[in-house]
Amino acid sequence: MAGSRNIIESMVDINIISHFVARRRVAFIASVDGAGFPNLKAMLPPRKTEGLRTFYFSTNTSSMRVVQYRENPKSCIYFYRKIPFKYQGVMLIGTMEVLEDEATKREIWQVGDKIYYPGGVTDPDYCILKFTATSGRYYCNLKTESFDID
Amino acid sequence: MAGSRNIIESMVDINIISHFVARRRVAFIASVDGAGFPNLKAMLPPRKTEGLRTFYFSTNTSSMRVVQYRENPKSCIYFYRKIPFKYQGVMLIGTMEVLEDEATKREIWQVGDKIYYPGGVTDPDYCILKFTATSGRYYCNLKTESFDID
Repeated sequence: MAGSRNIIESMVDINIISHFVARRRVAFIASVDGAGFPNLKAMLPPRKTEGLRTFYFSTNTSSMRVVQYRENPKSCIYFYRKIPFKYQGVMLIGTMEVLEDEATKREIWQVGDKIYYPGGVTDPDYCILKFTATSGRYYCNLKTESFDID
Repeated sequence: MAGSRNIIESMVDINIISHFVARRRVAFIASVDGAGFPNLKAMLPPRKTEGLRTFYFSTNTSSMRVVQYRENPKSCIYFYRKIPFKYQGVMLIGTMEVLEDEATKREIWQVGDKIYYPGGVTDPDYCILKFTATSGRYYCNLKTESFDID
């Protein structure tokens, strides 16, 4: 085949992985608690993303995850799909910041959010988690491959 | 109502949560890597469970998760369901052991596993992850509640 190469083909195409991530309806976020145990939680998908590098989630300021990220920003986020005969997963490793400035909160706010934050955009129990990835790992069926994020 | 009490009712019923966990088709497991970052991964559901305390998973001995658990057994596992207007999640915190004894491997082995471990029960790339929980956290819609596991 024209264009074939004598090296092992990488599965990792950042555009394809970005597209995969953008279509997921659930995200998983992990933190490390004060005793050093990993914690994880399913989340609504990110409200805003910049490639595979930056992801913004909304959450409750009072949540355990926020307390943990303030103490220890080391984090990972994960997206997966399991359909018959195919399993794909993307793990991104990086750090999580807790943002409470009104400009960011206003940008991320969506219609219907009052069910989660009755006080509206300025509700002190509404905040933003900003995840910044430095590396990733892509699983597809029985193969896995790591990659860096510029 | 007869039997009602003047205290806040707990959402946590270990039998109901065990039943919920037993019906999930995907499990998520988290570890902490050598740099202190949480890692997580979707898994096939546990092969064997004992209440909410002990869970056995099959995996590849060569996997990153196995390397990490041998260095640091701190772990959590997670099960969730998201259907319209209802979200449930169960996080269990505990430790993960890597078991390679033939008796355990034989007990956990299932028909069809050769797709993952071509060498069969004695394949050195086939091993068992045994998770033992000490505490948990149950999420249902917008409420969360922690519980201990005896």
